[in-house]
Amino acid sequence: MTASFHNKILRVNLTDGTTRVEEPGAVYFRRYLGGWNIIADVLLKEVPAGADPLGPENKLVFAPGVLTGLAVSGVSRNAVGAKSPLTGGFGAAEVGGDWGAQLKRAGFDALIVEGAAEKPVYLWIKDGEVEIRDATHLWGQLTKETQATIREELGDRRVEVAMIGPGGEKLARYACIMNGTKDAAGRTGLGAVMGSKHLKAVAVRGTQSLEGADNDTLRDMARAMAEAINSGAKGGTLHKYGTGVGVEGGVLSGNLPIRNFRDGEFPGAIKLSAETFMPQIGIGMDGCFACAMRCKKVVKAEAPFTLDPDYGGPEYESFGALGSCCGVDDIIAVSKATELCNAYSLDTISCGVTVAFAMECFENGLLTLADTGGIDLRFGNGEALVQVVELIGKREGIGDLLAGGSLRAAEKLGGGALHYAMQAKGQEYPMHEPRFKRGLAIAYAVSPTGADHCHALHDIMLVNAGPDGFVANEGLRALGLLEPIPLEDIGPAKVRATLYNMVRSVAGNCACLCLFVPWSTDEQVRLLRAATGWDMSVHELYKVGERALTLARLFNAREGFGPQDDRLAPRSYGPTTSGALAEGGIDPAALEAAMHTYYGMMGWERETGVPTREKLEELDVAWAEAYLP
Amino acid sequence: MTASFHNKILRVNLTDGTTRVEEPGAVYFRRYLGGWNIIADVLLKEVPAGADPLGPENKLVFAPGVLTGLAVSGVSRNAVGAKSPLTGGFGAAEVGGDWGAQLKRAGFDALIVEGAAEKPVYLWIKDGEVEIRDATHLWGQLTKETQATIREELGDRRVEVAMIGPGGEKLARYACIMNGTKDAAGRTGLGAVMGSKHLKAVAVRGTQSLEGADNDTLRDMARAMAEAINSGAKGGTLHKYGTGVGVEGGVLSGNLPIRNFRDGEFPGAIKLSAETFMPQIGIGMDGCFACAMRCKKVVKAEAPFTLDPDYGGPEYESFGALGSCCGVDDIIAVSKATELCNAYSLDTISCGVTVAFAMECFENGLLTLADTGGIDLRFGNGEALVQVVELIGKREGIGDLLAGGSLRAAEKLGGGALHYAMQAKGQEYPMHEPRFKRGLAIAYAVSPTGADHCHALHDIMLVNAGPDGFVANEGLRALGLLEPIPLEDIGPAKVRATLYNMVRSVAGNCACLCLFVPWSTDEQVRLLRAATGWDMSVHELYKVGERALTLARLFNAREGFGPQDDRLAPRSYGPTTSGALAEGGIDPAALEAAMHTYYGMMGWERETGVPTREKLEELDVAWAEAYLP
Repeated sequence: MTASFHNKILRVNLTDGTTRVEEPGAVYFRRYLGGWNIIADVLLKEVPAGADPLGPENKLVFAPGVLTGLAVSGVSRNAVGAKSPLTGGFGAAEVGGDWGAQLKRAGFDALIVEGAAEKPVYLWIKDGEVEIRDATHLWGQLTKETQATIREELGDRRVEVAMIGPGGEKLARYACIMNGTKDAAGRTGLGAVMGSKHLKAVAVRGTQSLEGADNDTLRDMARAMAEAINSGAKGGTLHKYGTGVGVEGGVLSGNLPIRNFRDGEFPGAIKLSAETFMPQIGIGMDGCFACAMRCKKVVKAEAPFTLDPDYGGPEYESFGALGSCCGVDDIIAVSKATELCNAYSLDTISCGVTVAFAMECFENGLLTLADTGGIDLRFGNGEALVQVVELIGKREGIGDLLAGGSLRAAEKLGGGALHYAMQAKGQEYPMHEPRFKRGLAIAYAVSPTGADHCHALHDIMLVNAGPDGFVANEGLRALGLLEPIPLEDIGPAKVRATLYNMVRSVAGNCACLCLFVPWSTDEQVRLLRAATGWDMSVHELYKVGERALTLARLFNAREGFGPQDDRLAPRSYGPTTSGALAEGGIDPAALEAAMHTYYGMMGWERETGVPTREKLEELDVAWAEAYLP
Repeated sequence: MTASFHNKILRVNLTDGTTRVEEPGAVYFRRYLGGWNIIADVLLKEVPAGADPLGPENKLVFAPGVLTGLAVSGVSRNAVGAKSPLTGGFGAAEVGGDWGAQLKRAGFDALIVEGAAEKPVYLWIKDGEVEIRDATHLWGQLTKETQATIREELGDRRVEVAMIGPGGEKLARYACIMNGTKDAAGRTGLGAVMGSKHLKAVAVRGTQSLEGADNDTLRDMARAMAEAINSGAKGGTLHKYGTGVGVEGGVLSGNLPIRNFRDGEFPGAIKLSAETFMPQIGIGMDGCFACAMRCKKVVKAEAPFTLDPDYGGPEYESFGALGSCCGVDDIIAVSKATELCNAYSLDTISCGVTVAFAMECFENGLLTLADTGGIDLRFGNGEALVQVVELIGKREGIGDLLAGGSLRAAEKLGGGALHYAMQAKGQEYPMHEPRFKRGLAIAYAVSPTGADHCHALHDIMLVNAGPDGFVANEGLRALGLLEPIPLEDIGPAKVRATLYNMVRSVAGNCACLCLFVPWSTDEQVRLLRAATGWDMSVHELYKVGERALTLARLFNAREGFGPQDDRLAPRSYGPTTSGALAEGGIDPAALEAAMHTYYGMMGWERETGVPTREKLEELDVAWAEAYLP
């Protein structure tokens, strides 16, 4: 029977130039699906404890899922993972575009890169073959240039390229990996791992089409979703504007981070809202492989900065981090900073929050004009923002300090700078205020990758039920979340809701499903069944997520992480200066209690947060017991 | 919206004669579904620790599920529960027939009986009303007589009666509750609880029809299942013969218990096989409310014993316990013993295994002709079997001793008799050899109700995959059991498979689904959705089962049960005298290890087996923390 995976994992060793293909078997793919689980399997088994994330012992895993590459909306993401240079722990990020689908169509389910090349190289994968090619001439190029050069020299404009710009080459701790010029595997600094291996790019081209076990069902489901999106029945403003409409509402609720999560008022927020700025700078929408949603903004401008439409436009996380979080409301400056991040391969979230950190340090005298090379790095200065982002990308001047991320910079600066570093486990907060969405307070603290909003409970997913608090929306009710939970709660009920949704989200990540295309959990299972021919259930899908979270936890435990690392940035324990959260602030004792509740609920040791032997066995990964600390 | 439950639980206090109706709300029913969960909720919250199971403090719960009473095959069972007089722990049994459906159609989702009447009474529940009526004239009557008298005095032949015979009245520790004359809530001695409350019967009549939220779907699914059963596409030999065909195969495999689980050879087995004896004594088939399966044998004979077709015929568990386990191959004697159990309200399993115990004691001189009143209680003596069963029902002579069950009798007899008591937690083994089906070794040991085959993994549910062992059938694969497990394994892989299937079975018990009507897990969820209008998932259904198992465990922990009670009968650690298991025997250290693995996998304390606070919170029953020991 045809199934939407090949049972082929490609390994490339850059130290000795060898390649090989492994066939781990159908059970492996059913147990893991893809993404995090494959990454965790490699990191635990193959990367020695204490390995330098930027050394040749680290391994870089490109892991699509069993759905990736099918002609269906919202299934063509791929995960990338390694030991994180930003956190020192489990590193993973998911990314859209066309690259993951091309890899699948080229005949591989995943790519594992080992060792390090002596000089710059890139990989050229085509229809089951792989070649390690010289990339000396590409080193130093921005991403757009890199992609164009590779396509030209391979003589194929349909080649998809995952790559780094100078930010990754120069080992910026939050360097991302770009799928083309618009889509970033943003978090946890995986671009620096690529840079440390002197791997400039992975070019892929597959000419085979990918079929599932039940193509009629896949076609019918794909068509129904596309029609629902195109008719406006599903997708709503995402299909029209991409992320980030109604941003001014985020000021009222307190969700939008303002000036490094310090303040509660920002009149310019409306200027950052997609429905405001798209009529000014938007020239269209773009999307991922085979996806009808097309939720990616394309923007263009000439002044005060030129915006190149070939780079990705500003999405919510980017214009939050580089905009409101830096106090900047000039959307063209913010979009330029976004473009630079994509060109240099920097994570817009960590970059923006690190610049915001620097701005607060500057306003408080911890950084001076001498440090910044004369840049007036005040909150709200859009020009300074653009200048500093480029310096980070080049790792020049103040950019060298800031390329280490807010935590490393704060440790170097001292003098109270740690209070301005908005990070958990060293990774900067995304653009959702955990003092407002308290499920995120739990998730930011406990997430194995550091602060992350993609595998978390956004409390707005709980439908407002009036005075009793929030009840679950339809997707969450199917997990058995039946009663209202007050917004401010971080007790066991909120922990449970957060945990359930984290597991569900991570399971979706493993399948490389997109959060934006609203496949219900039932439909996800139907897609998986039709793609693979397996009689999977929601229960089994949920176990896939538990497995990934538990293996990632185990990896972190082996690397020395413990409960003391499951904490928020100090500022989150106090209020904002004004606005909706002026009386906010997470109770640290309540958060600590929530962590232990979470550990126990996950079947991990309540006190230490280390997965139990029995939980590993229950999750059918008894092999992982060998890595218990 | 209409849903297939009423949000009405009827309480009757027999001490003061009061009745009341509670409305616990839709969330209660969604969280619990019915059955075990409702029973555990009542036992934990309302029955004080250390209460005498036969005292007025114990409560008797009749709990159908949210599906019970719908016109669909395989959904009309009801559970009954109380603190068990047999084990001293969590007591529960499920039963078919028409009674549960009648209770639902009379407007109630459950019935809780409290206190104790001074003299015999019965309850008369009709269309939302309840009356406590005198039953002095019924006391001492057999079940058939009881039902007839009640129907006559209520003037309605369609009244359904749950009741006890003299065995329950006289507090036989394994007395059952009969739904009519054919269907027994057999296990854990609930008939004795009924007797202790002087409650002879609960007569119900409902004239309302029960509708669900989506009756079109219910009707379509019911019709499709009925057609599949009637055409032979589903149900197979169950529909034709009921349980227990190919019994001689059980000798070859070792699954059939022979002479108190001692021996491995039994040439008469073929005479006990349904396809052999039904042509001799069968006169038809009967079934439960609205069910197309009709898997219950109707038998008739005149000699050597008269068999009354109004009583239930011999099903596998009954003719195993009263037949091969007693070494008796005369199906008419065995059927007579079964009939007596139904008439006197005795559990055929515990009764048969207790008689087998007595036979082995007799053969070894621990019981003498003086003890038996002259009955030659050797293995294989069908006449002695019939005589002794009647003595137990009347609690006369040797029957008084044996009415306590094998464990209590062994403790009284001493002299090594304990070695012949085939029980776990005081409840006798069912007719599946745990040395052969080793998932049952785990389940018998850990089950909160003592040895039980209805919420367990029968390893034959794992399809033979040749030399690698057994892999899961379709239903279990949907739980993520992906790889072959050797038949003899009782390590973590077998524990996991057993645990998953126990959870799935108990979830089904809560919904009061029948094990014999092959609704797939997907279809179970579709039935629940159509019946209730809730958007339930397999994940949520599985959590219902985890919840029930965990609450039952917590109840037992509160009553003093611990790991030392999760053990098999001593004989199970050694081989049979001959046959397939002549080199069999469970390694006690391996079983003990399996228990701790099970605890950990369930999210219970690994060492003690006590549910953790966090697991209770994760299962949304934080209220139960108050009952942690």
